[in-house]
Amino acid sequence: MSDTREQILEQIKVQGDLVRQLKAAKESKEKTAPSGGGRVSSSGVPAQRQQQQPQKQQQAQEQQQQHEQLQQIDEEVARLLALKATLGGDAAPTNQKFTLKTPKGTRDYGPQQMTLRQGVLDKIVQVFKRHGGEAIDTPVFELKEVLTGKYGEDSKLIYDLKDQGGEILSMRYDLTVPLARYLAMNKISSIKRYHIAKVYRRDNPAMTKGRYREFYQCDFDIAGTYDPMLPDAECVKIVSEILDSLDIGDYVIKLNHRQLLDGMFQACGVPTDSFRTICSAVDKLDKSPWADVRKEMVEEKGLDEAAADRIGEYVRLSGGAELVEQLLGDEKLKAVPNAVKGLEGMKQLLKYCSIFGLDKRVSFDLSLARGLDYYTGVIYEGVLKGESASVASPAKTSQQNGEQANEPATVGSVAGGGRYDNLVGMFDPRGKAVPCVGVSIGVERIFSVLEARAAASGLKLRTSDVEVYVASAHKGLHEQRLKVLNLLWDAGVKAEHSYKLNPKLLVQLQHCEEHQIPLVVVLGDAELAQGLVKLREVTTREETNVKLEDLAAEIRRRQQSA
Amino acid sequence: MSDTREQILEQIKVQGDLVRQLKAAKESKEKTAPSGGGRVSSSGVPAQRQQQQPQKQQQAQEQQQQHEQLQQIDEEVARLLALKATLGGDAAPTNQKFTLKTPKGTRDYGPQQMTLRQGVLDKIVQVFKRHGGEAIDTPVFELKEVLTGKYGEDSKLIYDLKDQGGEILSMRYDLTVPLARYLAMNKISSIKRYHIAKVYRRDNPAMTKGRYREFYQCDFDIAGTYDPMLPDAECVKIVSEILDSLDIGDYVIKLNHRQLLDGMFQACGVPTDSFRTICSAVDKLDKSPWADVRKEMVEEKGLDEAAADRIGEYVRLSGGAELVEQLLGDEKLKAVPNAVKGLEGMKQLLKYCSIFGLDKRVSFDLSLARGLDYYTGVIYEGVLKGESASVASPAKTSQQNGEQANEPATVGSVAGGGRYDNLVGMFDPRGKAVPCVGVSIGVERIFSVLEARAAASGLKLRTSDVEVYVASAHKGLHEQRLKVLNLLWDAGVKAEHSYKLNPKLLVQLQHCEEHQIPLVVVLGDAELAQGLVKLREVTTREETNVKLEDLAAEIRRRQQSA
Repeated sequence: MSDTREQILEQIKVQGDLVRQLKAAKESKEKTAPSGGGRVSSSGVPAQRQQQQPQKQQQAQEQQQQHEQLQQIDEEVARLLALKATLGGDAAPTNQKFTLKTPKGTRDYGPQQMTLRQGVLDKIVQVFKRHGGEAIDTPVFELKEVLTGKYGEDSKLIYDLKDQGGEILSMRYDLTVPLARYLAMNKISSIKRYHIAKVYRRDNPAMTKGRYREFYQCDFDIAGTYDPMLPDAECVKIVSEILDSLDIGDYVIKLNHRQLLDGMFQACGVPTDSFRTICSAVDKLDKSPWADVRKEMVEEKGLDEAAADRIGEYVRLSGGAELVEQLLGDEKLKAVPNAVKGLEGMKQLLKYCSIFGLDKRVSFDLSLARGLDYYTGVIYEGVLKGESASVASPAKTSQQNGEQANEPATVGSVAGGGRYDNLVGMFDPRGKAVPCVGVSIGVERIFSVLEARAAASGLKLRTSDVEVYVASAHKGLHEQRLKVLNLLWDAGVKAEHSYKLNPKLLVQLQHCEEHQIPLVVVLGDAELAQGLVKLREVTTREETNVKLEDLAAEIRRRQQSA
Repeated sequence: MSDTREQILEQIKVQGDLVRQLKAAKESKEKTAPSGGGRVSSSGVPAQRQQQQPQKQQQAQEQQQQHEQLQQIDEEVARLLALKATLGGDAAPTNQKFTLKTPKGTRDYGPQQMTLRQGVLDKIVQVFKRHGGEAIDTPVFELKEVLTGKYGEDSKLIYDLKDQGGEILSMRYDLTVPLARYLAMNKISSIKRYHIAKVYRRDNPAMTKGRYREFYQCDFDIAGTYDPMLPDAECVKIVSEILDSLDIGDYVIKLNHRQLLDGMFQACGVPTDSFRTICSAVDKLDKSPWADVRKEMVEEKGLDEAAADRIGEYVRLSGGAELVEQLLGDEKLKAVPNAVKGLEGMKQLLKYCSIFGLDKRVSFDLSLARGLDYYTGVIYEGVLKGESASVASPAKTSQQNGEQANEPATVGSVAGGGRYDNLVGMFDPRGKAVPCVGVSIGVERIFSVLEARAAASGLKLRTSDVEVYVASAHKGLHEQRLKVLNLLWDAGVKAEHSYKLNPKLLVQLQHCEEHQIPLVVVLGDAELAQGLVKLREVTTREETNVKLEDLAAEIRRRQQSA
């Protein structure tokens, strides 16, 4: 490394000398033969030719030569900068020539968005903790092999890391597979865990709808061998508590069961081999009409037309406990053990959901399929209804990154999950299974809805918690300000000042109004001489003199009574 | 995609048929010619040869044939599984053959570690907010060009993403360059922001020392054009407040100034071109003895021996305001304007630190250099002293991932930062500078120290907040339990149960003791008939009957008085 560096430094020196020589040559020439002047050039052009040529031609030739010289200087300078750039750092203070942006499908969160987001996440964590959740965290990337064969057709959306020597890594695609890896690796057979972290999918971003390539997931999962539907129903309850607490509008939690789907496919005459691929076609029903999905089944996936039509009959059904009873009586379904098991599971789940007061929130929906391969039992999805699903005025930042236009700005699914009893076993060397059920909250979509609502309301969130601003009434008080700040910080008071030696009082007071800081301490020599400072309420502009030693306590008192 | 899939499905069908044929052939052969039996084979071996060969040879030949047949079946089954694996999902329920681990240099955080970590982060955020910090967040990866030329020799440690078509991306290496990109991109000229997120460095992990390839950084930065050293001194104050609040032991905050370092290099006769490379050699003084650093300067970086020795004289100096005065009188330094400017900056900084009560916490240290290229002014580093720096019993998880052995388990630097006035300008198309100063808290190292301390104390942290466990005294009460749970959750009480239909009471009570849950609601038919439940204190085992409608309020009351 350092040898190369030395070599480059030597090259830079040589190149630098060359550039200096060229520039010097050009300057000396300009002194003797200013461009446009009628004098004979002293350059290397043969005198004989100069005499033969008329003046105009001579001028043109000189200009051409100068142009070439300038071009050579430019090239050599560029070569010098390139050499310096290979060293990096201060040696290469070149400004960037690329577009200043975040990677496609990603965004920054500024203070306003962070404040909103933190509020949402806090509410979600509160619900997770209310249900006894423990937090875990896993690395943002995994050995590629960990993710292989877990996501079906979506595997193509996984981000891979470059092979830089060492392990082959991929970015996590969700938080579920890392959880399964964690449980198998640490031989944990039961846990109730939540995990809030970013996941990565190389999908087509649709950022007005809150669909990003980098996005937060908030997952709650219950792992362990328990009695049927008890943990599953609690996950549905958690979704409803979260959507209620976020006050995001009306929603429905769609429920279905993978065993019932498989049984239904069997009853409709789908070959066993095609269950998963037909299932991922059904999964598209939330975005595409039945005609398109049927076409995919028949034309792309080679399904018999009659079988597709039979599926079409079922997937239009949704309802409650009465639909379960109806389907338990269905001739085709009751002949298939998987279908009956799935229906009996649904019956029990709906019973528990009813105890949890969710009758009006849940809907048994046969069109719900969910894309991921690893589900084995209950699946569910929380969907915003009507008005609440639309993002009226998409936040500014969501338009930066080349998203697809023309998509309707509706949000739809904001939570999803299900039971996956075999995933942990896929990681265990002996195949030991740990049954799991979980839910993932689609917070990015929730952020989109709430950001749009905040933008529409025109209200500005406070993005800092500063309680007191320490201001100077006149010049020469910066050290006094630092003393007062130190006193306040040490007492735990949130305080700031202007970082200027002699700021204008008006500017300081304006800062407080703009940033909604409630209190200002105004320092002045007259008060300080008596050990006093002025404490001013920003909104009322009321001022009181307070003893310096009582200041922190007085601020505490006012904050508590506010 | 789906065409290929169909082709694979067809191949799977053909391959499946082949496997079935082979197995059927083997079975039919076994029926007629069981292995080891003396009977004549009815297989394709010519009868003529059978008669010529003695029985033993015949047997051996049959066994060989059977072996080959089995081998063929195995191979064809493997081919079938491989085909299915390309489809992913349920079609390929193969268990993994790779070691179950997290990527090199990374780790999972379990609930115990998360609880400890969350406590640390909460304290840090509290300090950031006390100083008026606003939160931002940026994507985990950036366009590779954003990171290029910012980290000097460390650039080789950047993780790149694979080129999967589209933009060329790299994982963030720190939070400072993304901040600079964010400020330039959004034309923000002043902000006080904090950012807590993971960063990525392909370094040699030393996990007992808390050095990982994926690790959290907690950064606080003040951007804006302000008067000298006012924001800088506040950053030093923030480091001290954080280390104090974490109660992590004795520490020192080393201070130095890049301008002084450059001036010192100039005074010692280092060529201007070599300032950065000599600076990164000095940076190694916290890990290597002077002799090694001198060798690097002279042998690897071609520095004059006399110049190296002059540097050696300076870098052994450390002290306070008196050292600044001494150096302002130094013949070599006072001839160099950069050195004088650096020293005058240090004088002012030490003055402000003194007002902040940090005289005993800070040390002006000429050996402090910091590796990163982008610093232009003050630099500082918080270092744990003596006992507090050692990690007596490294946490179990830190030994999983092939870290370097034999490293002494000391922690050292736990915070660092400095002023970087040109970084934002490198991103601005017009080179508009936004002066910045900031600090980064090395929380992983802090976690290591606190984890070791927790492990040594043997105390177990509570990892969930459950206030009440809802238990059944006898069979058949699971629906009643769900009703009570629902009532508690809706009242905001943190509650859980066993997820078993009919759990044993003793098992339920043991769960509460193990998990330090303070209260149990015990349901029994006798009490329920009167609209009552038993409320039991886990530690005292005291039981009281409470009306169901008063339960939530009673639990609130007890939690508040506890």
